[in-house]
Amino acid sequence: MGYSSKLVESAVEALAMLPGVGKKTALRLALFLVDQDETKVRGFSEAIWKMRNEILHCRICHNLSDTDVCQVCADQSRKRQEICVVESFKDVMAIEETGQFNGLYHVLGGVISPIEGIGPEQLNITSLIDRITKEPDEQFELVMAISPTIEGDTTIFYLSKQLKDLNVTISTIARGVSFGGELEYADELTLGRSIIARIPYEK
Amino acid sequence: MGYSSKLVESAVEALAMLPGVGKKTALRLALFLVDQDETKVRGFSEAIWKMRNEILHCRICHNLSDTDVCQVCADQSRKRQEICVVESFKDVMAIEETGQFNGLYHVLGGVISPIEGIGPEQLNITSLIDRITKEPDEQFELVMAISPTIEGDTTIFYLSKQLKDLNVTISTIARGVSFGGELEYADELTLGRSIIARIPYEK
Repeated sequence: MGYSSKLVESAVEALAMLPGVGKKTALRLALFLVDQDETKVRGFSEAIWKMRNEILHCRICHNLSDTDVCQVCADQSRKRQEICVVESFKDVMAIEETGQFNGLYHVLGGVISPIEGIGPEQLNITSLIDRITKEPDEQFELVMAISPTIEGDTTIFYLSKQLKDLNVTISTIARGVSFGGELEYADELTLGRSIIARIPYEK
Repeated sequence: MGYSSKLVESAVEALAMLPGVGKKTALRLALFLVDQDETKVRGFSEAIWKMRNEILHCRICHNLSDTDVCQVCADQSRKRQEICVVESFKDVMAIEETGQFNGLYHVLGGVISPIEGIGPEQLNITSLIDRITKEPDEQFELVMAISPTIEGDTTIFYLSKQLKDLNVTISTIARGVSFGGELEYADELTLGRSIIARIPYEK
């Protein structure tokens, strides 16, 4: 498209770099921003740059954090021997949202995926092992909250091998049919595995 | 949602102000930006702020412009007595894209819409009349390229009343079935009107 304004063109190009935003949407967003209050757009622009510029990864768990050690790791009321291993920041948010976990986290930064060229050395695995070996007298529980995919299972398997001589028990989050879901719509693999992994009924 | 990082939270809130972007999408966009190169995100943020801060409206036609007078109005090779009246910047872009118009533009900034509380005084109508009265010896043609809606038609009617004593001929862009469209999918109104407004076939 031909833009009569270089300023609009640059803004459209910037917005079009966002995932899922094409040139047409980017133009719509740019023209929306042109119509907004100057202070509002300044705030918009600053919030994004400030986040990128100042964001840290927690020194302990690698979670995104405003400080050297994140809020969760700094919270002394949480069980320090329970570590939930997740792929990303989003998973931490999702689990925190449930209110069902009161331990700490460890963000791997992905899963092992030969197809995407991600090996164990690119993930935050060494620091996880360090966290455990640093306190040899403690009995840790690692809760693997990793996506139930081939890559996820490979990652859990790899971790379990690496951790087998340490004072650690490993669990994975339960897999099965979703609550509120209808059985007929569950995929075969999930349904099949949830039969194999059936649990005694408690009255 | 609970964010462990105020920086991320602020960026998500900023991104969620964009039209069509909810909190979930905003989080996805924010995390995408966290993963990008620092210089890239700085460029992103600056392009948007620079546009909002420096953009001007052309003194003559009200089109978005980087300069006091826009490229189109400054182009002396264009026919200065043909003025295409449009609602917005996007329409100028769309018409320029066709390459079929070689006159100037006038951007109204919307259409008359009592429902949305937009009256003629909020649109750039006075300046359009000024453009024409300033050169009483010229014969102008105004091409109304306004959306074929009730509001659009009202606006054209209002303009024609205001301009009736001036040296101006008024035309509207042709309305009818789209090229390449199938008749059975055209809406009744368009199809009906395109029969009423049928034109002699030229061999």
